[in-house]
Amino acid sequence: MTTPQTALDRRGVTSIADAVNGGTSTALAQAEETLLRLAAYDAVQPQIWISRIAPDELRAAARAVDARIAAGERLALAGVPFAVKDNIDVAGFETTAACPAFAYRPAASAGVVERLIAAGAICIGKTNLDQFATGLVGTRSPYGVPRNAYNLAYVSGGSSSGSSIAVAAGLVGFALGTDTAGSGRVPAAFNHLIGFKPSKGRWSTRGLVPACRTLDCITVFTTEVPDARRIDDVVAGFDPADPYSKPQADRSVQANRIGVPRRDQRAWFGDSESEYLYDRALGTLAGTAQIVEVDMAPLLEAARLLYGGPWVAERTAAIAELLANNPDAIDETVRSVVAPGADISAIELFNGMYRLAELQRGADGLWDAIDLLAFPTTGTTYRVAELLAAPIALNSNLGLYTNFVNLLDMAAVAVPAGARSNGTGFGITLIGPADGDQGLLAMAGDYLTAADLPCPPSLDMEGKMQSVKLAVVGAHLEGMPLHWQLTSRNATFLGAFETAPTYRLYAMANSLPPKPALVHSEDGAAIAVEIYELDIAAFGSFVVEVPAPLAIGTVTLSDGTSVKGFVAEPRALTDAEDITHLGGWRAYIQRS
Amino acid sequence: MTTPQTALDRRGVTSIADAVNGGTSTALAQAEETLLRLAAYDAVQPQIWISRIAPDELRAAARAVDARIAAGERLALAGVPFAVKDNIDVAGFETTAACPAFAYRPAASAGVVERLIAAGAICIGKTNLDQFATGLVGTRSPYGVPRNAYNLAYVSGGSSSGSSIAVAAGLVGFALGTDTAGSGRVPAAFNHLIGFKPSKGRWSTRGLVPACRTLDCITVFTTEVPDARRIDDVVAGFDPADPYSKPQADRSVQANRIGVPRRDQRAWFGDSESEYLYDRALGTLAGTAQIVEVDMAPLLEAARLLYGGPWVAERTAAIAELLANNPDAIDETVRSVVAPGADISAIELFNGMYRLAELQRGADGLWDAIDLLAFPTTGTTYRVAELLAAPIALNSNLGLYTNFVNLLDMAAVAVPAGARSNGTGFGITLIGPADGDQGLLAMAGDYLTAADLPCPPSLDMEGKMQSVKLAVVGAHLEGMPLHWQLTSRNATFLGAFETAPTYRLYAMANSLPPKPALVHSEDGAAIAVEIYELDIAAFGSFVVEVPAPLAIGTVTLSDGTSVKGFVAEPRALTDAEDITHLGGWRAYIQRS
Repeated sequence: MTTPQTALDRRGVTSIADAVNGGTSTALAQAEETLLRLAAYDAVQPQIWISRIAPDELRAAARAVDARIAAGERLALAGVPFAVKDNIDVAGFETTAACPAFAYRPAASAGVVERLIAAGAICIGKTNLDQFATGLVGTRSPYGVPRNAYNLAYVSGGSSSGSSIAVAAGLVGFALGTDTAGSGRVPAAFNHLIGFKPSKGRWSTRGLVPACRTLDCITVFTTEVPDARRIDDVVAGFDPADPYSKPQADRSVQANRIGVPRRDQRAWFGDSESEYLYDRALGTLAGTAQIVEVDMAPLLEAARLLYGGPWVAERTAAIAELLANNPDAIDETVRSVVAPGADISAIELFNGMYRLAELQRGADGLWDAIDLLAFPTTGTTYRVAELLAAPIALNSNLGLYTNFVNLLDMAAVAVPAGARSNGTGFGITLIGPADGDQGLLAMAGDYLTAADLPCPPSLDMEGKMQSVKLAVVGAHLEGMPLHWQLTSRNATFLGAFETAPTYRLYAMANSLPPKPALVHSEDGAAIAVEIYELDIAAFGSFVVEVPAPLAIGTVTLSDGTSVKGFVAEPRALTDAEDITHLGGWRAYIQRS
Repeated sequence: MTTPQTALDRRGVTSIADAVNGGTSTALAQAEETLLRLAAYDAVQPQIWISRIAPDELRAAARAVDARIAAGERLALAGVPFAVKDNIDVAGFETTAACPAFAYRPAASAGVVERLIAAGAICIGKTNLDQFATGLVGTRSPYGVPRNAYNLAYVSGGSSSGSSIAVAAGLVGFALGTDTAGSGRVPAAFNHLIGFKPSKGRWSTRGLVPACRTLDCITVFTTEVPDARRIDDVVAGFDPADPYSKPQADRSVQANRIGVPRRDQRAWFGDSESEYLYDRALGTLAGTAQIVEVDMAPLLEAARLLYGGPWVAERTAAIAELLANNPDAIDETVRSVVAPGADISAIELFNGMYRLAELQRGADGLWDAIDLLAFPTTGTTYRVAELLAAPIALNSNLGLYTNFVNLLDMAAVAVPAGARSNGTGFGITLIGPADGDQGLLAMAGDYLTAADLPCPPSLDMEGKMQSVKLAVVGAHLEGMPLHWQLTSRNATFLGAFETAPTYRLYAMANSLPPKPALVHSEDGAAIAVEIYELDIAAFGSFVVEVPAPLAIGTVTLSDGTSVKGFVAEPRALTDAEDITHLGGWRAYIQRS
């Protein structure tokens, strides 16, 4: 995944540091490159940043690193530019948590930032986020809505929105996020990145604006697994000034038995592409491990404590003063999520703690039956416009596979698992027991090697058309009587394909012009289709004109992906002729 | 401390088990002995029990143990009778938590009880307690007020009141208590017992009625340290069915540096006997370790979270249903403590959790400077009548040195450290880090060997007179003009003693009959006194007659103990003659 994609190739951590240490590059050269990239991407999404270092300060910082190298030091992160989510303190920058009224100028950098800078990394700026890290989408910020780097119509994922894009767009070598309910994993999935969420207490949270202080983790986005490992090497370790820091421990983790959600518990929210990509990822994992279905119910129950239970009050506690004195300064959606926590009693919280302890015991027992979990990172993704129309419900959908992890004290690494046809990333997350971090990172690397994914698609530098792919099977094929309905809508022909071998094709009786009915059947065959791409509005008007008993549904293709396409009501089969053996409508017409 | 004291000698654990295993006794013989002892002590304090096994069932259980022994088994607790605090489930008994309206009949025994019975121990019955284990006194129960086994005027200590007395009175070999804020330690101190409070999670709490479920520990009272160790061997260990159980770990603990409260932070509530006994205990410990004063302030701040902060709501949560539906069924004092927790918010609790985490970090740092703490178990004790008059304030005083321990995840062993003149026990508690249990027990044994304490006083089988010891120094000495004020009150002469060498004696000017003034002074000498014991009412009428500038205060004796005695206002020194060099008033009179 390091092959150049666009003018803004991705950058790495180890590659830059090794070059600067080795004398084939300098921190200053990296800084100048960074300035060029920042300027280029500012034309696309300036709103991924909340504040940024002045160019001359960046050069001065780079020169200081070069001087250390010249003096003989070898620095694990020599000259590597990085971004920091703006709920983490960096001396010299304001910390806003995406709420201007909350902003303050910290006296010192967060513990992890101190360690990164000491290792030669250079902070480029502070990135946008869902306010107070409350959200998985990126839409909840007065500093603008960061959008998916690969399709600007789609959400970036959040709450660590800006940090994920800064890495995906090649602006920095890595970026710090945070993660309470999935904020360091969801944006990784959507932007084809590694998102490493360490075990609670492994990385100091000193200098982090709390979301849920007992659950918060600082995380990192990188383009490669070894980069995440190098960051972990630099920042992991006990911090006596952080009451939630733990002495570092490493638990060995095998990868022989991989837990996945029971099939009937998987939710895709209508996104069959994600389902397909997940099955494909499991196919890869099955090459070296046994796949074991696990019951998600207890995990989901734990998750409900977070946003449907007493842990809401922990978010309330974090911004209680602002809620009391200046509630209008808070994003309306965030406020609607957080404010009700004030009415939760300590008794409810204690009862929640007891239930969580029981669920924790059950979760600990998971590791007897399996070695790690490999869950979808999310079941789907959404367009920004969709999210803004239903900001809470769709956000919740995105947390289904992530919310339980911190509550149940697990470590996680989100890794890419392919692209949807709209360019957004689908990912899986490897989840293991607390202190299994190093093992998880190793497995993430093994998985990516085995998966051999294609490079991420090109960055979306100007806003892709919102479009739909449509499979046509009969009268809309090129040269057929209704093909004009596509051409008149400026549909783009993407190619001739076949369905999965799970369809039967019928010639309907009494249909004029003659039209077929495509019917899903396990006892089926591959049927020829043509795929067209239509603008979303044109697609809508097209669907309006489809006559019964036909309909526009979802058609699975031979490569397992799905597109919109013609399907039929059962009544279409009345007196219809089964022409499956012909393999397609064109052959039927030619035979006639 | 195993020397017979009374008709009801103390019994042991290892001694009984070894005898039964070795064939020199049988479980049945022990059971018969138990029945005799129970009957004898029922004449004194039947209220220490809430329910008890029927004699024939006891005999049957004993025969079953004897059958196992006969079949070749060797059982760590063969035939050892034990009592269980009535907030711990034992199959076959109701569990009441000292609240009849709360009572239920458990389907199974608590995890620790199962293990004890499997090891050959025989449960004799369920013991009285401060209702819902809320209290350190023993006065808060509708089943009656257990009283100190050595002085029935005094509180037994609580909340594990009945269990402590059952051991002290020689009814059982050991007894289970529980401990959230000191309930397994305070009664140990008052009744000259070992009170072992294991690290949280070391002993399963499955089957325990929660007080504060995140803090509760099951504990044991024994007469000897090796007995506590044997119980720990039997019951310690992971219980997957208890969400708060932890895999057993053992942390090595040294005893080179022993932390004690800074002298200015020690509170004795006017009980100079306790102060003296504590200093004597530290003198023993100083023989093999360095005594290091520590700042109690952060420990006390943690403790305030328990009864003055959000953890009150944890007690409320435990009995929320009863509070809502049948509040009058709850002891009035307990209700006044617990009910306000309903108004505490989850936000307050989260903020308390954060503060506790910080304090925990500070407490963890203690173990860099010291190896263990040796604190007074309590600063004083109280009469039952005093407690009933001020049930909350005096109870709080008793928790000063115990409340913080569970909150800060420490292990503790309360051990005897001497008797007050009223017969009640004074104790110290060795406190160490979580998982330091075995080391703490070893040190407790070493301390007791070094301290070489006298045997506990005789049990109080009929209620001691409430009496006061009074030191007289002048006109009340035998043969002196005012001696009749003592004889007319049936005062008992206890003997001629000397004060500590920290007094000056003056012959007051213009006093008729001639009277001295005893004045404390570091530049002083030992002064001859006579000590009389008076009934409390007689003492009161005596004090009424003492003329100014004299007064009845506290006088420290040469052995460090303190008694009531004559002191003087400063004005007594006007024109007075310093006669300290004479060593006493009698010498002055004889010289005159």
